[in-house]
Amino acid sequence: MEKPVILVVNDDGIAAPGIRCLINTMKQLGEVYVMAPDKPQSGMGHAITINEPLRITKISIDKEIVEYKCNGTPVDCVKLAMHKVLPHRPDLIVSGINHGSNSTISVIYSGTMAAAIEGAIEGIPAIGFSLLDYSLDADFSACPDFIKTITENVIKNGLPDGVCLNVNFPVLPKEQIKGIKVCRQAKAVWIEEFDERLDPHNQNYYWLTGYLKNNENAEDTDEWALENGFVTIVPTQIDLTSYNTIHLINNWKFDV
Amino acid sequence: MEKPVILVVNDDGIAAPGIRCLINTMKQLGEVYVMAPDKPQSGMGHAITINEPLRITKISIDKEIVEYKCNGTPVDCVKLAMHKVLPHRPDLIVSGINHGSNSTISVIYSGTMAAAIEGAIEGIPAIGFSLLDYSLDADFSACPDFIKTITENVIKNGLPDGVCLNVNFPVLPKEQIKGIKVCRQAKAVWIEEFDERLDPHNQNYYWLTGYLKNNENAEDTDEWALENGFVTIVPTQIDLTSYNTIHLINNWKFDV
Repeated sequence: MEKPVILVVNDDGIAAPGIRCLINTMKQLGEVYVMAPDKPQSGMGHAITINEPLRITKISIDKEIVEYKCNGTPVDCVKLAMHKVLPHRPDLIVSGINHGSNSTISVIYSGTMAAAIEGAIEGIPAIGFSLLDYSLDADFSACPDFIKTITENVIKNGLPDGVCLNVNFPVLPKEQIKGIKVCRQAKAVWIEEFDERLDPHNQNYYWLTGYLKNNENAEDTDEWALENGFVTIVPTQIDLTSYNTIHLINNWKFDV
Repeated sequence: MEKPVILVVNDDGIAAPGIRCLINTMKQLGEVYVMAPDKPQSGMGHAITINEPLRITKISIDKEIVEYKCNGTPVDCVKLAMHKVLPHRPDLIVSGINHGSNSTISVIYSGTMAAAIEGAIEGIPAIGFSLLDYSLDADFSACPDFIKTITENVIKNGLPDGVCLNVNFPVLPKEQIKGIKVCRQAKAVWIEEFDERLDPHNQNYYWLTGYLKNNENAEDTDEWALENGFVTIVPTQIDLTSYNTIHLINNWKFDV
């Protein structure tokens, strides 16, 4: 079998240590192409760039692979790579390793996961990887072995139509990780705390800050598993339809 | 019963005709507060502003209500309104009316729907409204009666935990609209066509363009219903877990 063509993207930017770790792991599995944002794009969700021109620059941090940066979002990276850079459709898209958790509701805000979700929309197997450490000098050394076996399974087994994987790593040395657990997304919400300040012209401005509040502790959730030392996989789908709600609304009386 | 407190947001910006139509309709149903972006934010998905300060400005286009604009994304608008502007938690969040469709996969890229989804994350009933006409002078005259009856039903019946509504309008006079149809999200994908140009310094740049390719024509989908003259409601959920995939992955062999 030919080596699979693997597209690597992220949302922390081309120079982040997390993407370097992911690139090095993918080089053992396939032919690697990289397209990453030229600046941090955390929290960009599934944003695309409509009103600004996009630019692509070839770079050469790692001479063994083909690498580009662009001025767009993580989803722009996937679209540009697929339609302007890659020799043909990739066999796999991997995103990350994100500096910071994308468990629970964070999947919706995450640029890392948006890139993987874009892969699923395009019909390409895709995985987002995240480590629960926001710092730039986070220690990714426990991740590669898990990334390798999860990715090998995706290459071998494929993924259902419209589904990608959201993989999160606890901050633990490899020997303390209890294993891999397939989970559902826990019910959680970000509690906003806007930091209100006065600028030199006496005008108010606000910094968005906050913390994640987990509203459940069930053992089949990603948040529980991460707190208990597991690497988590949440299969994540692009169909947002709430099928259970359809019959409820069909009982409503509309008066037009 | 006291009048419900209704937050109106959008992604086309505070001056768009669509939000004016939605505000005028909501004034018949409750006490209206507005927080909208100061510039168009289409395609921003669920982006939030982490690395830039946010600013809020009180404005007064409509003297009967309390209106603000901010320099953030649609999701920032919801967060800022809820935590810095409203007297208490709103009873309802409505977003739109978007100039352009948010049916099928567009729900994932849409700033309009991201604002409604943010409402669902916060536990507040929320609806995103969109008209299938991108033009700035789109004719919204068929929308208000439908918006009113859908919104009254949401106020009366509530919505399940973690679910909001994605409502789309075909471009038809009211008398030609066949009714309201509750649907699932059709399987579709945006086909990218990057418009490649040379700048005056001989550097390439790209404009993202494309068209929606609908991959199915089932009568229970939003795209079919819109093409056949219905207003569509897709109940849309914040839990992205693909439950059917969990058991599949549990059969994989991980080697760590």
